[in-house]
Amino acid sequence: MKLIHYKRGNESRLACIQENKVIDLHGAYVSYLKDKGELRAELLAEAEVPSKAVGFLQGGEKSMSLARKAVEYIENNASEEERKEWILSKEEVKIEAPVQNPSKIICVGHNYQEHIREMGRELPTHPVIFAKFANAIIGPQDDIPLKSITNKLDYEAEFSFVIGKRAKDVKEEDALDYVAGYTIVNDISARDLQMRTLQWLQGKGLDGSAPMGPWLITKDEVPDPDSLDISLKVNGEVRQQSNTKNLVFNVNRLVAFLSEIMTLEPGDVICTGTPGGVGVARDPQVFLQDGDTVTIDVGNIGTLENTVRQV
Amino acid sequence: MKLIHYKRGNESRLACIQENKVIDLHGAYVSYLKDKGELRAELLAEAEVPSKAVGFLQGGEKSMSLARKAVEYIENNASEEERKEWILSKEEVKIEAPVQNPSKIICVGHNYQEHIREMGRELPTHPVIFAKFANAIIGPQDDIPLKSITNKLDYEAEFSFVIGKRAKDVKEEDALDYVAGYTIVNDISARDLQMRTLQWLQGKGLDGSAPMGPWLITKDEVPDPDSLDISLKVNGEVRQQSNTKNLVFNVNRLVAFLSEIMTLEPGDVICTGTPGGVGVARDPQVFLQDGDTVTIDVGNIGTLENTVRQV
Repeated sequence: MKLIHYKRGNESRLACIQENKVIDLHGAYVSYLKDKGELRAELLAEAEVPSKAVGFLQGGEKSMSLARKAVEYIENNASEEERKEWILSKEEVKIEAPVQNPSKIICVGHNYQEHIREMGRELPTHPVIFAKFANAIIGPQDDIPLKSITNKLDYEAEFSFVIGKRAKDVKEEDALDYVAGYTIVNDISARDLQMRTLQWLQGKGLDGSAPMGPWLITKDEVPDPDSLDISLKVNGEVRQQSNTKNLVFNVNRLVAFLSEIMTLEPGDVICTGTPGGVGVARDPQVFLQDGDTVTIDVGNIGTLENTVRQV
Repeated sequence: MKLIHYKRGNESRLACIQENKVIDLHGAYVSYLKDKGELRAELLAEAEVPSKAVGFLQGGEKSMSLARKAVEYIENNASEEERKEWILSKEEVKIEAPVQNPSKIICVGHNYQEHIREMGRELPTHPVIFAKFANAIIGPQDDIPLKSITNKLDYEAEFSFVIGKRAKDVKEEDALDYVAGYTIVNDISARDLQMRTLQWLQGKGLDGSAPMGPWLITKDEVPDPDSLDISLKVNGEVRQQSNTKNLVFNVNRLVAFLSEIMTLEPGDVICTGTPGGVGVARDPQVFLQDGDTVTIDVGNIGTLENTVRQV
């Protein structure tokens, strides 16, 4: 399943995408329950298939499987009216980031062997981790804001995973049980702010500095997260290119490492780090400008494309 | 007003503390509305005086003033039954941290002049900022977990403020309009984890590494946040002692600085940094051990005391 949020009136709601169709999971599940004669359909649906990704992921495999049932129902058994209400066309809605307001966004630095080399550093014995906050999240159809506070806005293509089950002291070999699925994050970094103190947060925390999408693809559709091609283009020119097999710390190792330090919660987003080729490490250096289009492709996950806009 | 959360059954609910009394604000407000003959009392109360601090702070001055009305009502005009339901004695409940699940915890490093010197560093031109996540928050009656992953658990007394209004590009002189009030955070740091990579997050992010309390005191009760004595004792021995007048970047400057980088949201907690005297900088170094009691006093805000427990 490919999960997103979409804008409906003032609300941001969870849905899944199937080719051109956007299916509202909570809405479809309410219809399914009503059809079964369930009197408390709305209330049950709010508990079992919530309308936001974080709540939905808290429901774990049970919510996931009820959502699949709801999709099957709305596609095959629902009335014309119900279908019209909860199956929308991609063109008529705004697609938003698949996770809104996660309790954590944890980024890993120096995790691709060639990126470590281009930054002039040695292979780490432990992952370098740092934070972003939810204010950074924007969706696949949003622009990346270029604020006058920075002259050195840079891109970082990142293969990312989303936690699906509370994780504490998880073993490497069990790690994927705690992963809901995968997405792409562009870890937009203001290099001037990042480098002016020892800690990177101020260069990593700008509003809109975590474009995410095009969706969260559930793990059943990504059989091998350790062999995904990853590339980033600026205005069509390839700037970063690698494969997740080059990660120093892969998904399993990161879940084990992080969950020993802090409890990971459903909806938490972990960005696994970026390959070589970032703007700040090029010769000459090159930074993002108003109007630039940044395109990230990761394996069969999809394509995340955003345009930079001066604000 | 002194705001806390307290445990009621399985729920953590907002309340205020008045001497020995814990007054449930949402509950008191429902009573107030019912007494006024309001039929939709529960629903209105959920919108106007929510039962969690973050939601309550989102309601801004309006929610704050309705809460004060509710307290006055429950103390002076409510029935005996209502009083029994919503006015509890401090001894009969568990007090929890005043803010649960903030969207951000931002910590400032190197912000007291003498602490900068003891760490051997120069006065910074910009604040050093780093993150904790909500998993770190525990309350004034919780123990600080000492996990075997670290041998160098350390304390950091921090005068902290809580955002009361969405803040973006706020000027220094307007900063206090965006502050709800003040609290104390012990920025517990695992120095071995903190120092093993360039970025501090892994040493700052342990579960339970942000004891917070004893309450959030609203800003009207702290006329001058720039002249508060701050001290920390371990088992009664003074280890840190300073005054917020020694902060390089005070509350006003931090609100301005941070809100230019990222939108601050109601409930966000900003820890302003720690004075000299941390364990890692002492000669010989000394770290927290099972059974140690750490006591922080800040001006008229109050006392935060927690005991370290091996887990």
